[in-house]
Amino acid sequence: MTRQLSSLAKKRLKYQPEMAKVLKDVKKTTVKSKNLKTKLCNKVKPYFPQLFNLPLLEIVEAKAKKLKKNEKKVEPKRLRVGVVFSGGQAPGGHNVIAGLFDSLKSLHIDSELIGFLNGPSGIVDAKFKKITESGLKQYRNQGGFDYLGSGRTKIETQSQLKASYETAKELDLDAIVVIGGDDSNTNAAVMAEYFLKKKSNTKVIGVPKTIDGDLKGDYIEKSFGFDTATKVYSEMIGNIAIDALSAKKYYHFIKLMGRSASHVTLECAINTQVNITLIAEEVLDKKLSLKEVAEDIAKKIEKRAKKGKFYGLVLIPEGLIEFIPEVKNLIFELNNILSQKKVVRQIEKAELLTEKVELIEKALKPKSRSCFKTLPSLIQEQLLLDRDPHGNVQVSKIETEKLLIELAGKILSEKKIKFKAQAHFFGYEGRSAFPTNFDSNYCYSLGTVATVLIKEGLTGYMASLKNLDMKPSSWQPLGVPITSMMNIEIRNGKPKPVIRKALVEMNSKEFRTFSKGRQLKENEDLYINPGPIQF
Amino acid sequence: MTRQLSSLAKKRLKYQPEMAKVLKDVKKTTVKSKNLKTKLCNKVKPYFPQLFNLPLLEIVEAKAKKLKKNEKKVEPKRLRVGVVFSGGQAPGGHNVIAGLFDSLKSLHIDSELIGFLNGPSGIVDAKFKKITESGLKQYRNQGGFDYLGSGRTKIETQSQLKASYETAKELDLDAIVVIGGDDSNTNAAVMAEYFLKKKSNTKVIGVPKTIDGDLKGDYIEKSFGFDTATKVYSEMIGNIAIDALSAKKYYHFIKLMGRSASHVTLECAINTQVNITLIAEEVLDKKLSLKEVAEDIAKKIEKRAKKGKFYGLVLIPEGLIEFIPEVKNLIFELNNILSQKKVVRQIEKAELLTEKVELIEKALKPKSRSCFKTLPSLIQEQLLLDRDPHGNVQVSKIETEKLLIELAGKILSEKKIKFKAQAHFFGYEGRSAFPTNFDSNYCYSLGTVATVLIKEGLTGYMASLKNLDMKPSSWQPLGVPITSMMNIEIRNGKPKPVIRKALVEMNSKEFRTFSKGRQLKENEDLYINPGPIQF
Repeated sequence: MTRQLSSLAKKRLKYQPEMAKVLKDVKKTTVKSKNLKTKLCNKVKPYFPQLFNLPLLEIVEAKAKKLKKNEKKVEPKRLRVGVVFSGGQAPGGHNVIAGLFDSLKSLHIDSELIGFLNGPSGIVDAKFKKITESGLKQYRNQGGFDYLGSGRTKIETQSQLKASYETAKELDLDAIVVIGGDDSNTNAAVMAEYFLKKKSNTKVIGVPKTIDGDLKGDYIEKSFGFDTATKVYSEMIGNIAIDALSAKKYYHFIKLMGRSASHVTLECAINTQVNITLIAEEVLDKKLSLKEVAEDIAKKIEKRAKKGKFYGLVLIPEGLIEFIPEVKNLIFELNNILSQKKVVRQIEKAELLTEKVELIEKALKPKSRSCFKTLPSLIQEQLLLDRDPHGNVQVSKIETEKLLIELAGKILSEKKIKFKAQAHFFGYEGRSAFPTNFDSNYCYSLGTVATVLIKEGLTGYMASLKNLDMKPSSWQPLGVPITSMMNIEIRNGKPKPVIRKALVEMNSKEFRTFSKGRQLKENEDLYINPGPIQF
Repeated sequence: MTRQLSSLAKKRLKYQPEMAKVLKDVKKTTVKSKNLKTKLCNKVKPYFPQLFNLPLLEIVEAKAKKLKKNEKKVEPKRLRVGVVFSGGQAPGGHNVIAGLFDSLKSLHIDSELIGFLNGPSGIVDAKFKKITESGLKQYRNQGGFDYLGSGRTKIETQSQLKASYETAKELDLDAIVVIGGDDSNTNAAVMAEYFLKKKSNTKVIGVPKTIDGDLKGDYIEKSFGFDTATKVYSEMIGNIAIDALSAKKYYHFIKLMGRSASHVTLECAINTQVNITLIAEEVLDKKLSLKEVAEDIAKKIEKRAKKGKFYGLVLIPEGLIEFIPEVKNLIFELNNILSQKKVVRQIEKAELLTEKVELIEKALKPKSRSCFKTLPSLIQEQLLLDRDPHGNVQVSKIETEKLLIELAGKILSEKKIKFKAQAHFFGYEGRSAFPTNFDSNYCYSLGTVATVLIKEGLTGYMASLKNLDMKPSSWQPLGVPITSMMNIEIRNGKPKPVIRKALVEMNSKEFRTFSKGRQLKENEDLYINPGPIQF
């Protein structure tokens, strides 16, 4: 089934992505080694004996080689490449494939691109389709991952790795390109190392994808999709701001997708200049309790009320709740308690929510108990009932926006301050939108960078471009060793090498931009409505 | 405080609205009486002895009058006009004011436009500001009503009418222009009739505003704001559709603003071709119970599941709940019960929700009791706790989208069919967006039509334009007698003349477009993503 196309979709099909100058003729590219300025985490080395300590690579124009007498020009060989979407959607994904496809074909007309279906499980189970111009042409510059589908399977176990190895061998792949976030790129490196060990001919290249914006580092300026998603959310926030200013009636508490880091929320706050923005990393930095967060919001609302303003906007990052130590502890304890079958049975037997709550309260340690008691019953219920198949609390399902409305509302009502609020959550609205020109260009270039890295026979690298603030022709393509971004974290009680999630830093340029005139934005109405993305 | 302007906002300031040809020189306009084809409701007559049975008016070019010897050309007189925003925001409101202002000034440079602040209460309390080019120029082609603010006060009582009369007299107004929905235009007619009775010189003209799209009739093709709001919602729905198609994981239940009629939902369904769309009027037409609605959704989801599809989109109109007879009865009974102080005290005394629910169940009649019992506890709680100051259930606060997820989910889980859902509600996102070119043009023309009607000394008319499907220059401006759109309804137990709300009709062009290939849309994925509005 092919896509139905709106008139804008048809117009976008015709858009020609702009590219880094050096990428315009991939045949004439080569790579140049550079020293990394990143300090490596030596504990990662044992996990990646072959990939650790690779150099940073810059893609540059290859000097035309003077041919000796009777020497023939070496033509690039035909390549067979597999590509997979891993994890949540981000605008631009289809253009990574388009960039890959076009550059592979320009290297050698018989090169082939194979798309694995519905995420990494497509590699393990060898479910794939051949990518053709006639199939791909409907997806150029379009949002979504639906040309191939995506999935959240992680290739981690030995049997998964072995199956992937066999699929790659069966398909005679020169490389697999993994389009994914931090965990997917971590697994790409694991696969690359495994393939090297097995003497496979298949290389593995990663592409930095995530609307969350937390996959970045010294050589990854931005993950793709972040630009589009934050612009879609900012459009909605801007519209709501003008509505609040017109009706003068409501506080809008808006939760934004993007766990765990608050990059999305920070970017939207800069774009729209709303009154109150919670940045999870700042809450952690100040070691605030949930009560203190609510009190702070209430204080700011009270200040506006004194100026006769009973409306405003509050932005809340999805990950907030996990950055409040006492709530984090509470969730940790709840997960422990709810993994005990006996307790779960008791809770299931209890008919009333109040009885369930009592049972839990008894089982919690005093600190967590008092934290649990401050929660409104709606949230208590979400904590107890909305659990994943492993019994874990589903943090993403906790309606933080409603929680904060209730907690702040209680404080304000005690002070007899008029307060009416509306709750919103934006997430799915931005993940599959039409990519902006930036994301269209960036993704198309990333796909092309991947081709160059494959052509050079590299593995364990992530495609990247720097100077993204400049016009596309000035972008500098890079190959970044994935292991250089890793550190050791404890996952499920065990140390594991993973790509470091980039959190919002209090001394970053973005946080300083946001902080400038913060009080003025709180007290006045300096809202900016960026409006819909214009192509 | 003036608005902060984004780069798009600045670009939009420069947009020159297109207009009906005849409106380009308001000095050269006149009106032509036409017979109404609408059948009048004679019961309305006693309430509007002076305004009843006015003719329909077409605005046409005035033939240049040949001046007799020594006769001087009569120049249009200077006009003083007041304008007010009434009720919820709709994109384009500022352009009605711009159209009014520019045309008044073009009639006579000393004409004045006065804006009443924060809605109709601004008339009653004589709170206003003079509209100037320097103030207005930042609001041209911008969303929101914030240049003046809006409000929901209804001018109905004798003392309110008297106060309005005095404000108009004090300000020496030739006319007041009311920018509002059906109720606001009803009240505009009441004010017009009252002013006539009082021999006031002030005329009253209405302008049809509402994103809900339910203010339309034989001579009002569309209310302003509907075009923009439905396009904003469709952008979001289209994005979510592509996301659902990519992730293949969730059903998205999306509730859309627009009580009570389902025009908004119908328009969005046509724009995006989602799988399942509930139209409240159709549910009423088929006399479905809540259970039947849920069963129907579940049946369609089951059918998709059999084809291996565990994702999709369901659109739900905000007003749905009131169109299901048994729920309507339940709410009616609840409002009665909860207006009895004794019961309310008992309920307040009860600590547990279950006790409160039991008390209510006892008080309900058998049919309503069984309907109440089918509701999930979250919804029961919303019905009992979220009441307005008069004790009435706040229908708009009922989370129908979650209610239907729970009810359909229960049926599906009994059948062991995989079903995961996300709930969304879009409303505030679309009310204050940048108006589309259509709404910018339409509103600017509506403001100009109002000026012509005022110049012609008319009162009790609504400004309108027909042929809206054609290019703006071909639009035909009209003056529509407000009373011609009225019928008698029972409000608070008393008969009252009000403008008939236009519901979705099963034989309308829109409903037929929507119905075409409905089953195919249910079973396949024919989603269209219209994308962001392009200017």
